Amino acid sequence: MNISKRGIEIQASPIRKLKPFADSAIARGIKVYFINIGQPDIPTPQHVWDAMKNFDEKVLSYGPAQGFLELRQAVADYYSDYNISLNADNIIITVGGSEALHFAFSIVSDPGGEIIVPEPFYTNYNGFATFADVNLIPLTLRVEDGFRLPPVEQIESKITPKTRAFLLCSPNNPTGSVYTQEEIETIIGLVKKHDLFLISDEVYKEFVYDGARHISVLEYSDVSDRVIVADSISKRFSCCGARIGAIITRNEDLYQAALKFAQARLCPPTLEQMGALAAYRMKKDYFKPVREEYQKRRDILFNGLKDIPGIIMFKPGGAFYIVVKLPIKNAEHFAQWMLTDFQMDNETVMVAPAQGFYATPGKGLNEIRIAYVLKEEDLIRALKVLRAGLKKYQSLFD
Amino acid sequence: MNISKRGIEIQASPIRKLKPFADSAIARGIKVYFINIGQPDIPTPQHVWDAMKNFDEKVLSYGPAQGFLELRQAVADYYSDYNISLNADNIIITVGGSEALHFAFSIVSDPGGEIIVPEPFYTNYNGFATFADVNLIPLTLRVEDGFRLPPVEQIESKITPKTRAFLLCSPNNPTGSVYTQEEIETIIGLVKKHDLFLISDEVYKEFVYDGARHISVLEYSDVSDRVIVADSISKRFSCCGARIGAIITRNEDLYQAALKFAQARLCPPTLEQMGALAAYRMKKDYFKPVREEYQKRRDILFNGLKDIPGIIMFKPGGAFYIVVKLPIKNAEHFAQWMLTDFQMDNETVMVAPAQGFYATPGKGLNEIRIAYVLKEEDLIRALKVLRAGLKKYQSLFD
Repeated sequence: MNISKRGIEIQASPIRKLKPFADSAIARGIKVYFINIGQPDIPTPQHVWDAMKNFDEKVLSYGPAQGFLELRQAVADYYSDYNISLNADNIIITVGGSEALHFAFSIVSDPGGEIIVPEPFYTNYNGFATFADVNLIPLTLRVEDGFRLPPVEQIESKITPKTRAFLLCSPNNPTGSVYTQEEIETIIGLVKKHDLFLISDEVYKEFVYDGARHISVLEYSDVSDRVIVADSISKRFSCCGARIGAIITRNEDLYQAALKFAQARLCPPTLEQMGALAAYRMKKDYFKPVREEYQKRRDILFNGLKDIPGIIMFKPGGAFYIVVKLPIKNAEHFAQWMLTDFQMDNETVMVAPAQGFYATPGKGLNEIRIAYVLKEEDLIRALKVLRAGLKKYQSLFD
Repeated sequence: MNISKRGIEIQASPIRKLKPFADSAIARGIKVYFINIGQPDIPTPQHVWDAMKNFDEKVLSYGPAQGFLELRQAVADYYSDYNISLNADNIIITVGGSEALHFAFSIVSDPGGEIIVPEPFYTNYNGFATFADVNLIPLTLRVEDGFRLPPVEQIESKITPKTRAFLLCSPNNPTGSVYTQEEIETIIGLVKKHDLFLISDEVYKEFVYDGARHISVLEYSDVSDRVIVADSISKRFSCCGARIGAIITRNEDLYQAALKFAQARLCPPTLEQMGALAAYRMKKDYFKPVREEYQKRRDILFNGLKDIPGIIMFKPGGAFYIVVKLPIKNAEHFAQWMLTDFQMDNETVMVAPAQGFYATPGKGLNEIRIAYVLKEEDLIRALKVLRAGLKKYQSLFD
């Protein structure tokens, strides 16, 4: 009677592992600014609340395994505004972007296959990979290079006979980088050349700043049958707790496989699909002020960090994260110390050590990820506390 | 670029595969009585709706990976009323009972392991098994024996060095049988003797009739560390679309493994956990009329079927299903024919062919599962139509 290897090996959330220290700090009466996780403070749109609260049925019953047709059509309509042509039958509504990724990993690869992913990457990819028994092969990017992809030969050298897919995330969690057209086309070229799938996590699609445009892999018709997009309303409409995402593919065989996985778990939450439907039916001008708000925060954060001596970072073009290399040795120790030993006027901050976003051992040890999900005044205050904490920490430990 | 073996092999829902024929019948103006799926018509309690509609937050945010503490405590309190002692940290809230089963399969076994399960069994176990790459080893039960477990030697003969667990479901979907104390203790004896886990699907716990009592494997303290219960509010509170279930275990290592799987997918739906909390906080007298309603329906159905010449069935003691052996050769053809070729006063019924509930090829070919999830008058009418259809079908095909 032993627990499975996968049950032992699947990683504990590195983001959540500092949580008990934050709880203790709060219990000691300290105010903690949470810039460690991507939980936005942007209100969930009133249309979403209204749709859920006005849902008028007697029985909260199962919906279709692939999600309600109206919602799938609304997702397709959303994409058509970006000149991406989809129909409802290219879309399966999933339980968050998480399930979309889990399905995607399981469909493109059998146990033992490899998926190449630029690191640092969203740490939960590790969980889905262990669950699906596939190996993530990291392609290391560096903050010093602005987290740009390396030359094509270097990327290509990661491809083996076991490779099944590339996994991209743009705008990127955790780096905030937005892949350029050239970078995306480099990967598309490799995917065609080596007959691979391309999984693309585009949940931060709406959060691209400075007037730039998000490029979706769905725009490339020559790889239509190779592409799976993982999507979600969590960040797009500030509905993290709804657990509504989507898997999108024009490959009918991939779709049918995903549909069978979907049938096994019956359906996504019914009521929150109603909320998602209302969200997608909102006018597109919903996004503009939200995007401006995040861009403003990014600027506050970036400007507030850039004159810290010894800091290395790159101005993120999207999402709401930044990975920062600190002039210290051990970012995990620093993050914990901020919660256990530091306070300024009874306040401290919680950051995410970046080590958990790398698969290569020893990478990211002196880096942290900051999520700019707080409103301006809180973010400014959190920055002050972080700067003071860092200074104090350096005087003690480095 | 090939789709994974598991993506190809995972079964399409056999329950849902007749759906297009039902849709066509409806399009032709025929009223279809759906007694093929376990979607109850019992209204979702007003407390549940109120809790979700009165949820007063600005942001629909992530909850804890293991579910809200209040809800986990409420589930523990529910069990304490049955003299089953649990604390909140024995419980992880899951996305339906489906996810609880998927986690359980993945935690008790690595790829290639075996789980022994009496057949016929809930067909979606196949999906989770393919997804988790474990093999379900069927132990065939017979309607002629009232779906009772065979002698212990026969059960024991299924155990191999690859066996990791037994999987029980009581009250049972699809047979409606409720395991006796002796049957449960037989399995518990084997689990101890052969050092195995015991996964128990107890989602129909409240639906036991004729004054009998449900026996939970959680009542056996000598296998406390071996037991994982998959639970759900879907049927218990008529909340199928909420997608709120639970995995329950007192084994700390199993719990920690399940928690890591839970962390990978972030959290269950926030709003519908509020509904679940309200459901569990209702007075226990909620269940009595619901149980009486189902028992009444069972009696109507059973009495309405029993004088059909050549029918073989056993009066179910729980859940809201019955498996019936019909005096025909091909129940799948019959089920389809009822939708495509038969109508009585412009009405027909949709039943589930039982073949999909068996893993052994060739079993259940002339059996159907009927769910008694319709109100009395509809059930009586569905019965009439079914009887007439069967008679006509026999005259044509047998």
